[in-house]
Amino acid sequence: MNIRTDLAMEAYELLTETADEIAGIGVKKEQINNTEITRVEVKTKDAAKKLGKPEGNYVTVEVSDVSMLDSDKMEALCQLLANEIKALANLKKDSTVLVIGLGNRNVTPDALGPEVISCLMVTRHMLEYMPEQMPDGIRSVCAISPGVLGITGIETEEIVRGVTEKIKPNLVICIDALAARSIKRISRTIQICDTGIAPGAGVGNKRRALNRQTLGVPVIAIGVPTVIDAATITSDSLLAVTDSLKKSAKQGSEFYNMLSKIDEDEQFALIKEALYMSNENFIVTPKDVDLMIEKTAKIVANGINLALHEDISLEDVEMYVG
Amino acid sequence: MNIRTDLAMEAYELLTETADEIAGIGVKKEQINNTEITRVEVKTKDAAKKLGKPEGNYVTVEVSDVSMLDSDKMEALCQLLANEIKALANLKKDSTVLVIGLGNRNVTPDALGPEVISCLMVTRHMLEYMPEQMPDGIRSVCAISPGVLGITGIETEEIVRGVTEKIKPNLVICIDALAARSIKRISRTIQICDTGIAPGAGVGNKRRALNRQTLGVPVIAIGVPTVIDAATITSDSLLAVTDSLKKSAKQGSEFYNMLSKIDEDEQFALIKEALYMSNENFIVTPKDVDLMIEKTAKIVANGINLALHEDISLEDVEMYVG
Amino acid sequence: MNIRTDLAMEAYELLTETADEIAGIGVKKEQINNTEITRVEVKTKDAAKKLGKPEGNYVTVEVSDVSMLDSDKMEALCQLLANEIKALANLKKDSTVLVIGLGNRNVTPDALGPEVISCLMVTRHMLEYMPEQMPDGIRSVCAISPGVLGITGIETEEIVRGVTEKIKPNLVICIDALAARSIKRISRTIQICDTGIAPGAGVGNKRRALNRQTLGVPVIAIGVPTVIDAATITSDSLLAVTDSLKKSAKQGSEFYNMLSKIDEDEQFALIKEALYMSNENFIVTPKDVDLMIEKTAKIVANGINLALHEDISLEDVEMYVG
Amino acid sequence: MNIRTDLAMEAYELLTETADEIAGIGVKKEQINNTEITRVEVKTKDAAKKLGKPEGNYVTVEVSDVSMLDSDKMEALCQLLANEIKALANLKKDSTVLVIGLGNRNVTPDALGPEVISCLMVTRHMLEYMPEQMPDGIRSVCAISPGVLGITGIETEEIVRGVTEKIKPNLVICIDALAARSIKRISRTIQICDTGIAPGAGVGNKRRALNRQTLGVPVIAIGVPTVIDAATITSDSLLAVTDSLKKSAKQGSEFYNMLSKIDEDEQFALIKEALYMSNENFIVTPKDVDLMIEKTAKIVANGINLALHEDISLEDVEMYVG
Repeated sequence: MNIRTDLAMEAYELLTETADEIAGIGVKKEQINNTEITRVEVKTKDAAKKLGKPEGNYVTVEVSDVSMLDSDKMEALCQLLANEIKALANLKKDSTVLVIGLGNRNVTPDALGPEVISCLMVTRHMLEYMPEQMPDGIRSVCAISPGVLGITGIETEEIVRGVTEKIKPNLVICIDALAARSIKRISRTIQICDTGIAPGAGVGNKRRALNRQTLGVPVIAIGVPTVIDAATITSDSLLAVTDSLKKSAKQGSEFYNMLSKIDEDEQFALIKEALYMSNENFIVTPKDVDLMIEKTAKIVANGINLALHEDISLEDVEMYVG
Repeated sequence: MNIRTDLAMEAYELLTETADEIAGIGVKKEQINNTEITRVEVKTKDAAKKLGKPEGNYVTVEVSDVSMLDSDKMEALCQLLANEIKALANLKKDSTVLVIGLGNRNVTPDALGPEVISCLMVTRHMLEYMPEQMPDGIRSVCAISPGVLGITGIETEEIVRGVTEKIKPNLVICIDALAARSIKRISRTIQICDTGIAPGAGVGNKRRALNRQTLGVPVIAIGVPTVIDAATITSDSLLAVTDSLKKSAKQGSEFYNMLSKIDEDEQFALIKEALYMSNENFIVTPKDVDLMIEKTAKIVANGINLALHEDISLEDVEMYVG
Repeated sequence: MNIRTDLAMEAYELLTETADEIAGIGVKKEQINNTEITRVEVKTKDAAKKLGKPEGNYVTVEVSDVSMLDSDKMEALCQLLANEIKALANLKKDSTVLVIGLGNRNVTPDALGPEVISCLMVTRHMLEYMPEQMPDGIRSVCAISPGVLGITGIETEEIVRGVTEKIKPNLVICIDALAARSIKRISRTIQICDTGIAPGAGVGNKRRALNRQTLGVPVIAIGVPTVIDAATITSDSLLAVTDSLKKSAKQGSEFYNMLSKIDEDEQFALIKEALYMSNENFIVTPKDVDLMIEKTAKIVANGINLALHEDISLEDVEMYVG
Repeated sequence: MNIRTDLAMEAYELLTETADEIAGIGVKKEQINNTEITRVEVKTKDAAKKLGKPEGNYVTVEVSDVSMLDSDKMEALCQLLANEIKALANLKKDSTVLVIGLGNRNVTPDALGPEVISCLMVTRHMLEYMPEQMPDGIRSVCAISPGVLGITGIETEEIVRGVTEKIKPNLVICIDALAARSIKRISRTIQICDTGIAPGAGVGNKRRALNRQTLGVPVIAIGVPTVIDAATITSDSLLAVTDSLKKSAKQGSEFYNMLSKIDEDEQFALIKEALYMSNENFIVTPKDVDLMIEKTAKIVANGINLALHEDISLEDVEMYVG
């Protein structure tokens, strides 16, 4: 499969276009108010290989339009995210959590991770230096934005491993901007999974994995699609049109046969060439990506804040984070 | 024509795909070092209508890759731009020039105008308050970034007219981020024209014209393509593939005929629907658009600086602008 | 008086240190919850000259600590500001209001004005293009950030006058960062007055006035102290110490007499020299001035939003402004 | 000593106001063009205690005005810094260097470190993934901006140690914004030392040391004063005035005796109280601190770039860093 998506749910939809059911993959959908939750469980190595995603749980939360939420719906969405994070996290009362904001803060569509960190309720230093002033239910949370390979010269995984070995957290949460296949996912979808960050995933093409194997502790990854590869979207548009042509062509006719013979990979290469997209540096993104990242980062951060600390409200968070 | 380009040169190329020569349009190409200059002159009302661009002169400067220029080539490029601006500007020794940075500084691909303003050698206040300290050859230059309708609630044209009536400049130069049709123009092309800003042009969809008619003084517009509409690029990819299929199909065959019947406008609508692009809010842009805007703004600003002030070097400008 | 303050209330306090009451100046204080409101009315030309502030009304709102407000107290503060603005504004149902964000967005302590503009509920274009979709009670509000002389080469007053003549608003509101004399005012004080912006006021040293005389419409100015001149604060510290020494010295003794002879202006010059503050480019400011500006701008903007539009809540504003 | 300076040279000047020479401290001054270099060597534990700075070498480079340098003088200054860094660094051909950008990127006067990192020629990943494409003389350089305790919840020293243990560099270079005592140092002074970062130093009050003892490798620290504590500057202004009064008073007179009795610490406390500076959150800084940080960061980064890589010019760096 040439076409890239970081969403397990999209990968599943692409697979099931041809095969109705895939052994070893469980999918459940649930609707809560205007939010659709899809839970994909990849149960076997075989299924993982087919899907191109490691074994584990992937929860996708989809809202109709993030930019249209009033403050009550916003709080409800953050609480819903918090519940999903808690369900995967298995936190204890004295757990320490390290949150990693992946991505490049200077490249807007890749800046989600660092933005989330800046809205996070970080407490580890306070629990250390003034424990008596901290209310019950506040867990030890710390956070870093390690930067990207091109700017640091260091694999993100090396930095995260170094810090993890010093901090010894009970859980690592990684935040990353993702690439989706479909424009309708952009700024409307949040994926939470317990498999960490796969090699090569994310907008910034991180090379090495961040997961329980590499870090030695459970790793939850939270991702939001912010871009689509320009080549992907053009290929998809082509498929949409050939599909529509096929429907209007008589089955068995020369035209139908020709259309069926069009090889997807060949088209993909052709498009890339035709559009001078020799490298992967062009993306499709909303015009107001700056604002979108800001809003989504706040939602993700508050989902984490409500998940990691007990008995706090968004208002408490606001006073704390400032 | 559904497909939008702000470049007169691209519009011309699209027209001449079908018709070899267009009456009333003159086109000259020139190569200076690695830079290609195309001069399009729209001479008649008829030609203007065909091209969708007002009568006047459009100079397009194309470099192979802006991000690869060393400082000597950068200076040469700025000087070349300066010469083209001067050729259109008809400046006198005591001309006052007002530079307008169009676009929204908070939306990266639309921020070119305000960025250029911040690199400009502005002198009007100095010539007024300490004329004796200013060297000969320094012209009176002032500049504003009027913002965009969605943030100010005021048509850009109203602000610019209000300021123009107070300042009474001899020339207005407008800077704007443009939409192109082809990805190969992005960050490599600079268009300079003497027709001002046409209604509806630019990334931010400015509604009203800024030109000699509306402002009462000559208006030069300088634009750089920073985005392509996502719908445009997908439509183009489709054309590329159907063209290629046509070539391989036998002329006169059923398949060939079917392909020929595909209506471009219909496809365009179909793609928009298929990709959930119900509005025009998705764009194709380089991943590092932030850096690209910064670099290009500096080049455009220095082209203007060298054009408007006599006997100065880029080094003088650097000390001055800071 | 060498020492500069943009607050009428501070100027009054300085005057009354020596003279108990000043003819032609009325002062009323009011306490609402944790907020202290001081209303200074300058009634005569003579009083205006003494105070160094034009005739008119100056309302100062002081909170104990802006960074410690929860969302209820924040809303109450914004509503209180809204009431004070309305009391000075005399708005009609169909009034058009132009808000001016003074200052330099690239110099943090001077960026309050442009920041306020970015949080404003701007409606003029909507009332023009889709009046039927706008609820009752929404007034026509538009806004610009004209930049500063050093960047535009144009006196702010020229830009504002040009735009005002085009828009013909019924009221102009100017926002500006101020210089105070006392550190306890910084980030805790908001001044609203109906005299506009006086020449030479503000952090960025605007030269010309913005008021009913220059603009032809009523002008309300809203200012927040963000800095103190470094020279001012050092001079004040000196006064504090000499005052304390005087108290401990016997009246009539040589020491007391020497202290009394210390000339304030001379000290001021001496300090400037001693500290290499030959120019006025050093300021005293909170370490986290970036955050302080962001918070205060939101409060001021919401005070204006609630004042200019009827029957709206902060939640409505949030959905609208984004 | 109540009054804080991070500059060894200033600390030395303060000491020698009372005692002419201090055993165990060597000081050499050198003038190169318009740049003054002061080399302070702290040779004994005793001297270190007196000076409040650890044993080692401190080189201070002072320029008359950074904002007035043309590009030739800029290059000369960067080369001069490079030479001083090399003299302390003892680099081998295959040394790996880790550069740490200390400070908070969101608090302008504390953002020097992260700003320097963004202008650095980082090469470690390139030497690893495409060694054949890298010219001779390019050393392995990597860099991180670890953030500050209040945002990460992690002591900077923990992050740096974690990364150092993974990377195993031969040298660590730390960049930090400093607090000076005198306004004339701000934006004109660069300190390079081989003792690392002392506990509690820097604008952001870092608590733990970064040096050979804590990191296990040699540590060079490069610092630039960007602020003065508001309390420090007011105390200094007081001293300046009392000194001047003393000069004019007759020795032995009552006035002279009273002045001599004024206790410095007491004054300091008094000033703090008088000015409501109960905490250390107010600073004195240039009005255009944003621009000053940007310029200085570029100079420091280029000094490091020229020091760490052989046979490169600033123009090479510019093409590389972009």
